[in-house]
Amino acid sequence: MDFNSRILGIDPGSRITGYGVIEKESGGRLKFVACGVVKSTPSLPFPERLMEIYDGICEVIVKHGPDEAAIEDVFMSKNAMSALKLGHARGVLILAAIKHHLTVHEYTPLTVKQSVVGHGGADKRQVQHMIKSLLSLSGLPGHDASDALAVAVCHANMMRFEKESG
Amino acid sequence: MDFNSRILGIDPGSRITGYGVIEKESGGRLKFVACGVVKSTPSLPFPERLMEIYDGICEVIVKHGPDEAAIEDVFMSKNAMSALKLGHARGVLILAAIKHHLTVHEYTPLTVKQSVVGHGGADKRQVQHMIKSLLSLSGLPGHDASDALAVAVCHANMMRFEKESG
Repeated sequence: MDFNSRILGIDPGSRITGYGVIEKESGGRLKFVACGVVKSTPSLPFPERLMEIYDGICEVIVKHGPDEAAIEDVFMSKNAMSALKLGHARGVLILAAIKHHLTVHEYTPLTVKQSVVGHGGADKRQVQHMIKSLLSLSGLPGHDASDALAVAVCHANMMRFEKESG
Repeated sequence: MDFNSRILGIDPGSRITGYGVIEKESGGRLKFVACGVVKSTPSLPFPERLMEIYDGICEVIVKHGPDEAAIEDVFMSKNAMSALKLGHARGVLILAAIKHHLTVHEYTPLTVKQSVVGHGGADKRQVQHMIKSLLSLSGLPGHDASDALAVAVCHANMMRFEKESG
Protein backbone atom coordinates (compact mmCIF):
# COMPACT_ATOMS: atom_id res chain seq x y z
CA MET A 1 0.00 0.00 0.00
CA ASP A 2 1.24 3.45 -0.95
CA PHE A 3 1.06 6.35 1.45
CA ASN A 4 1.08 10.02 0.70
CA SER A 5 4.54 11.46 1.16
CA ARG A 6 5.30 15.04 2.20
CA ILE A 7 8.43 16.59 0.78
CA LEU A 8 10.15 19.73 2.05
CA GLY A 9 12.19 21.51 -0.63
CA ILE A 10 14.87 23.97 0.47
CA ASP A 11 16.66 26.64 -1.54
CA PRO A 12 19.40 27.64 0.91
CA GLY A 13 20.67 31.19 1.37
CA SER A 14 22.58 33.01 4.09
CA ARG A 15 20.07 35.89 3.86
CA ILE A 16 16.93 34.37 2.41
CA THR A 17 16.16 30.65 2.42
CA GLY A 18 13.20 29.54 0.34
CA TYR A 19 11.08 26.59 1.43
CA GLY A 20 8.28 24.69 -0.26
CA VAL A 21 6.23 21.77 0.99
CA ILE A 22 4.37 19.46 -1.40
CA GLU A 23 2.51 16.21 -0.98
CA LYS A 24 2.89 13.34 -3.35
CA GLU A 25 -0.35 11.45 -3.31
CA SER A 26 -0.36 7.67 -3.59
CA GLY A 27 -1.59 7.98 -7.20
CA GLY A 28 1.42 10.14 -8.06
CA ARG A 29 -0.36 13.52 -8.16
CA LEU A 30 1.55 16.41 -6.62
CA LYS A 31 -0.31 18.73 -4.25
CA PHE A 32 0.87 22.10 -2.99
CA VAL A 33 0.96 22.40 0.83
CA ALA A 34 2.90 25.56 1.69
CA CYS A 35 5.77 27.78 0.66
CA GLY A 36 7.59 30.84 1.93
CA VAL A 37 10.96 32.14 3.08
CA VAL A 38 13.07 32.07 6.23
CA LYS A 39 15.00 35.32 6.60
CA SER A 40 18.03 36.19 8.69
CA THR A 41 18.68 39.73 9.90
CA PRO A 42 21.70 41.28 8.12
CA SER A 43 22.44 43.63 11.04
CA LEU A 44 22.87 40.75 13.52
CA PRO A 45 26.21 38.98 14.14
CA PHE A 46 26.59 35.94 11.86
CA PRO A 47 26.24 33.32 14.67
CA GLU A 48 22.84 34.76 15.60
CA ARG A 49 21.79 34.76 11.96
CA LEU A 50 22.65 31.06 11.73
CA MET A 51 20.37 30.49 14.72
CA GLU A 52 17.56 32.41 13.00
CA ILE A 53 17.92 30.20 9.92
CA TYR A 54 18.00 27.01 12.02
CA ASP A 55 15.04 27.99 14.22
CA GLY A 56 13.08 29.23 11.21
CA ILE A 57 13.34 25.99 9.25
CA CYS A 58 12.68 23.92 12.41
CA GLU A 59 9.41 25.83 12.79
CA VAL A 60 8.46 25.02 9.19
CA ILE A 61 9.27 21.32 9.75
CA VAL A 62 7.23 21.14 12.97
CA LYS A 63 4.27 22.97 11.37
CA HIS A 64 4.06 20.96 8.15
CA GLY A 65 5.51 17.59 9.20
CA PRO A 66 7.36 16.56 6.02
CA ASP A 67 8.70 12.99 5.67
CA GLU A 68 11.69 13.86 3.53
CA ALA A 69 13.80 16.88 2.67
CA ALA A 70 15.42 17.87 -0.61
CA ILE A 71 17.98 20.67 -0.69
CA GLU A 72 19.67 22.42 -3.56
CA ASP A 73 23.42 21.94 -3.90
CA VAL A 74 25.57 25.03 -3.71
CA PHE A 75 26.37 26.62 -7.01
CA MET A 76 30.15 27.04 -6.89
CA SER A 77 30.37 30.72 -7.68
CA LYS A 78 33.59 32.56 -8.36
CA ASN A 79 33.07 34.34 -5.07
CA ALA A 80 34.52 31.80 -2.64
CA MET A 81 33.59 33.95 0.35
CA SER A 82 29.86 33.92 -0.43
CA ALA A 83 29.99 30.18 -1.19
CA LEU A 84 31.53 29.69 2.23
CA LYS A 85 28.80 31.73 3.95
CA LEU A 86 26.21 29.73 2.06
CA GLY A 87 27.95 26.57 3.29
CA HIS A 88 27.40 27.66 6.90
CA ALA A 89 23.68 28.28 6.24
CA ARG A 90 23.33 24.99 4.37
CA GLY A 91 25.02 23.17 7.25
CA VAL A 92 22.44 24.31 9.81
CA LEU A 93 19.55 23.66 7.38
CA ILE A 94 20.67 20.08 6.81
CA LEU A 95 21.16 19.67 10.56
CA ALA A 96 17.58 20.86 11.20
CA ALA A 97 16.23 18.25 8.77
CA ILE A 98 18.27 15.38 10.19
CA LYS A 99 17.47 16.38 13.78
CA HIS A 100 13.80 15.94 12.84
CA HIS A 101 14.50 12.49 11.39
CA LEU A 102 13.99 13.47 7.76
CA THR A 103 16.11 11.84 5.10
CA VAL A 104 18.02 14.52 3.20
CA HIS A 105 18.49 14.44 -0.58
CA GLU A 106 20.70 16.83 -2.51
CA TYR A 107 20.21 18.00 -6.10
CA THR A 108 22.25 20.32 -8.27
CA PRO A 109 20.49 23.36 -9.81
CA LEU A 110 21.00 21.69 -13.21
CA THR A 111 19.17 18.51 -12.17
CA VAL A 112 16.33 20.55 -10.64
CA LYS A 113 15.83 22.58 -13.84
CA GLN A 114 16.04 19.53 -16.07
CA SER A 115 13.53 17.70 -13.92
CA VAL A 116 11.04 20.58 -13.62
CA VAL A 117 11.33 22.50 -16.90
CA GLY A 118 12.90 19.87 -19.11
CA HIS A 119 16.22 21.57 -19.79
CA GLY A 120 19.09 22.80 -17.62
CA GLY A 121 19.25 26.25 -19.16
CA ALA A 122 15.87 27.37 -17.79
CA ASP A 123 15.79 30.75 -16.03
CA LYS A 124 14.06 31.61 -12.75
CA ARG A 125 10.95 32.90 -14.51
CA GLN A 126 10.47 29.69 -16.44
CA VAL A 127 10.84 27.68 -13.23
CA GLN A 128 8.26 29.93 -11.56
CA HIS A 129 5.70 29.46 -14.35
CA MET A 130 6.24 25.73 -14.55
CA ILE A 131 5.82 25.37 -10.77
CA LYS A 132 2.59 27.40 -10.92
CA SER A 133 1.26 25.12 -13.62
CA LEU A 134 2.47 21.80 -12.14
CA LEU A 135 1.03 22.54 -8.70
CA SER A 136 -2.11 24.33 -10.01
CA LEU A 137 -1.31 27.48 -8.04
CA SER A 138 -3.57 30.52 -8.38
CA GLY A 139 -0.61 32.95 -8.47
CA LEU A 140 3.14 33.01 -9.05
CA PRO A 141 5.18 32.17 -5.93
CA GLY A 142 8.23 34.39 -5.20
CA HIS A 143 11.58 33.35 -6.70
CA ASP A 144 13.02 31.79 -3.53
CA ALA A 145 9.84 29.90 -2.64
CA SER A 146 9.42 28.80 -6.25
CA ASP A 147 13.02 27.47 -6.40
CA ALA A 148 12.35 25.55 -3.19
CA LEU A 149 9.13 24.06 -4.59
CA ALA A 150 11.13 23.09 -7.70
CA VAL A 151 13.62 21.13 -5.55
CA ALA A 152 10.70 19.33 -3.89
CA VAL A 153 9.10 18.54 -7.27
CA CYS A 154 12.47 17.33 -8.58
CA HIS A 155 12.73 14.93 -5.64
CA ALA A 156 9.16 13.69 -6.19
CA ASN A 157 10.05 12.93 -9.83
CA MET A 158 13.24 11.14 -8.76
CA MET A 159 11.26 8.97 -6.32
CA ARG A 160 8.96 7.96 -9.16
CA PHE A 161 11.95 7.13 -11.32
CA GLU A 162 13.62 5.09 -8.58
CA LYS A 163 10.41 3.19 -8.05
CA GLU A 164 9.92 2.45 -11.74
CA SER A 165 13.48 1.35 -12.23
CA GLY A 166 13.66 -0.49 -8.88
CA MET B 1 35.23 41.69 41.20
CA ASP B 2 36.69 39.50 38.51
CA PHE B 3 35.46 35.99 37.93
CA ASN B 4 37.26 33.12 36.30
CA SER B 5 36.24 32.76 32.70
CA ARG B 6 36.14 29.49 30.79
CA ILE B 7 36.94 29.62 27.10
CA LEU B 8 36.21 26.91 24.53
CA GLY B 9 38.56 27.05 21.53
CA ILE B 10 37.49 25.28 18.34
CA ASP B 11 39.57 24.28 15.32
CA PRO B 12 36.83 23.27 12.86
CA GLY B 13 37.11 20.39 10.43
CA SER B 14 34.61 18.32 8.47
CA ARG B 15 36.45 15.15 9.54
CA ILE B 16 38.24 16.09 12.75
CA THR B 17 37.36 19.08 14.89
CA GLY B 18 39.80 19.98 17.65
CA TYR B 19 38.56 21.48 20.91
CA GLY B 20 40.37 22.96 23.89
CA VAL B 21 38.98 24.38 27.11
CA ILE B 22 41.01 26.74 29.27
CA GLU B 23 40.21 28.84 32.29
CA LYS B 24 41.38 32.38 32.63
CA GLU B 25 41.78 33.05 36.34
CA SER B 26 40.90 36.44 37.76
CA GLY B 27 44.63 37.22 38.13
CA GLY B 28 45.12 36.58 34.42
CA ARG B 29 46.79 33.14 34.69
CA LEU B 30 45.68 30.60 32.11
CA LYS B 31 44.80 27.10 33.29
CA PHE B 32 44.30 24.00 31.13
CA VAL B 33 40.93 22.29 31.59
CA ALA B 34 40.51 19.79 28.76
CA CYS B 35 41.23 19.12 25.11
CA GLY B 36 40.45 16.54 22.47
CA VAL B 37 38.79 15.96 19.14
CA VAL B 38 35.28 15.43 17.79
CA LYS B 39 35.33 13.05 14.86
CA SER B 40 32.80 12.38 12.13
CA THR B 41 32.56 9.04 10.38
CA PRO B 42 33.71 9.27 6.72
CA SER B 43 31.54 6.32 5.65
CA LEU B 44 28.31 8.00 6.82
CA PRO B 45 26.20 10.31 4.60
CA PHE B 46 27.25 13.95 5.04
CA PRO B 47 24.02 15.03 6.86
CA GLU B 48 24.65 12.40 9.54
CA ARG B 49 28.26 13.50 9.86
CA LEU B 50 27.08 17.05 10.48
CA MET B 51 24.91 15.70 13.29
CA GLU B 52 27.89 13.84 14.79
CA ILE B 53 29.89 17.08 14.78
CA TYR B 54 27.01 19.06 16.31
CA ASP B 55 26.22 16.45 18.98
CA GLY B 56 29.91 15.97 19.77
CA ILE B 57 30.63 19.62 20.46
CA CYS B 58 27.35 19.99 22.40
CA GLU B 59 28.58 17.19 24.68
CA VAL B 60 31.88 19.03 25.24
CA ILE B 61 30.00 22.26 26.06
CA VAL B 62 27.66 20.55 28.53
CA LYS B 63 30.54 18.69 30.20
CA HIS B 64 32.92 21.63 30.62
CA GLY B 65 30.52 24.58 30.80
CA PRO B 66 32.52 27.29 29.00
CA ASP B 67 31.37 30.93 29.12
CA GLU B 68 32.67 31.90 25.69
CA ALA B 69 33.70 30.26 22.47
CA ALA B 70 36.48 31.17 20.04
CA ILE B 71 36.62 29.54 16.62
CA GLU B 72 39.23 29.64 13.89
CA ASP B 73 38.25 31.32 10.64
CA VAL B 74 38.35 29.22 7.53
CA PHE B 75 41.58 29.37 5.62
CA MET B 76 40.46 30.08 2.06
CA SER B 77 42.19 27.27 0.29
CA LYS B 78 42.38 26.87 -3.47
CA ASN B 79 40.10 23.88 -3.13
CA ALA B 80 36.71 25.59 -3.04
CA MET B 81 34.92 22.27 -2.51
CA SER B 82 36.74 21.49 0.73
CA ALA B 83 36.28 25.09 1.94
CA LEU B 84 32.57 24.63 1.33
CA LYS B 85 32.46 21.37 3.32
CA LEU B 86 34.36 23.07 6.10
CA GLY B 87 31.76 25.86 5.98
CA HIS B 88 29.00 23.33 6.68
CA ALA B 89 30.91 21.95 9.69
CA ARG B 90 31.72 25.42 10.97
CA GLY B 91 28.05 26.40 10.65
CA VAL B 92 26.86 23.62 12.98
CA LEU B 93 29.74 24.25 15.42
CA ILE B 94 28.82 27.94 15.71
CA LEU B 95 25.16 26.96 16.07
CA ALA B 96 26.04 24.61 18.97
CA ALA B 97 27.85 27.43 20.79
CA ILE B 98 25.10 29.99 20.32
CA LYS B 99 22.40 27.45 21.26
CA HIS B 100 24.23 27.10 24.61
CA HIS B 101 24.29 30.89 25.06
CA LEU B 102 28.03 31.29 24.51
CA THR B 103 29.30 34.39 22.76
CA VAL B 104 31.24 33.37 19.67
CA HIS B 105 34.49 35.05 18.62
CA GLU B 106 36.28 34.39 15.34
CA TYR B 107 40.02 34.63 14.71
CA THR B 108 42.06 34.10 11.58
CA PRO B 109 44.89 31.52 11.70
CA LEU B 110 47.32 34.45 11.32
CA THR B 111 45.98 36.25 14.40
CA VAL B 112 46.07 33.03 16.42
CA LYS B 113 49.72 32.35 15.53
CA GLN B 114 50.76 35.94 16.16
CA SER B 115 49.04 35.92 19.50
CA VAL B 116 50.37 32.56 20.68
CA VAL B 117 53.82 32.24 19.10
CA GLY B 118 54.59 35.89 18.33
CA HIS B 119 54.70 35.65 14.54
CA GLY B 120 52.21 34.62 11.84
CA GLY B 121 54.60 32.27 10.07
CA ALA B 122 54.74 29.74 12.94
CA ASP B 123 54.17 26.10 12.00
CA LYS B 124 51.97 23.54 13.77
CA ARG B 125 54.91 22.16 15.79
CA GLN B 126 55.84 25.56 17.14
CA VAL B 127 52.22 26.18 18.14
CA GLN B 128 52.16 22.78 19.88
CA HIS B 129 55.31 23.51 21.89
CA MET B 130 54.20 27.01 22.84
CA ILE B 131 50.82 25.70 24.03
CA LYS B 132 52.54 23.02 26.13
CA SER B 133 54.71 25.65 27.76
CA LEU B 134 52.00 28.34 28.22
CA LEU B 135 49.54 25.92 29.83
CA SER B 136 52.21 23.91 31.73
CA LEU B 137 51.14 20.64 30.12
CA SER B 138 53.07 17.46 30.89
CA GLY B 139 52.95 16.27 27.26
CA LEU B 140 52.37 17.58 23.76
CA PRO B 141 48.68 17.69 22.77
CA GLY B 142 47.77 16.41 19.29
CA HIS B 143 47.78 18.91 16.40
CA ASP B 144 44.03 19.47 16.24
CA ALA B 145 43.61 19.81 20.01
CA SER B 146 46.67 22.05 20.20
CA ASP B 147 45.32 24.33 17.45
CA ALA B 148 42.03 24.56 19.36
CA LEU B 149 43.82 25.43 22.61
CA ALA B 150 45.74 28.09 20.64
CA VAL B 151 42.47 29.71 19.53
CA ALA B 152 41.32 29.74 23.17
CA VAL B 153 44.62 31.28 24.34
CA CYS B 154 44.40 33.86 21.53
CA HIS B 155 40.95 34.87 22.75
CA ALA B 156 42.16 35.09 26.36
CA ASN B 157 44.95 37.43 25.22
CA MET B 158 42.48 39.54 23.23
CA MET B 159 40.23 39.88 26.30
CA ARG B 160 43.19 41.16 28.28
CA PHE B 161 43.96 43.65 25.53
CA GLU B 162 40.37 44.84 25.29
CA LYS B 163 40.30 45.32 29.05
CA GLU B 164 43.56 47.27 29.13
CA SER B 165 42.56 49.49 26.25
CA GLY B 166 38.92 49.82 27.33
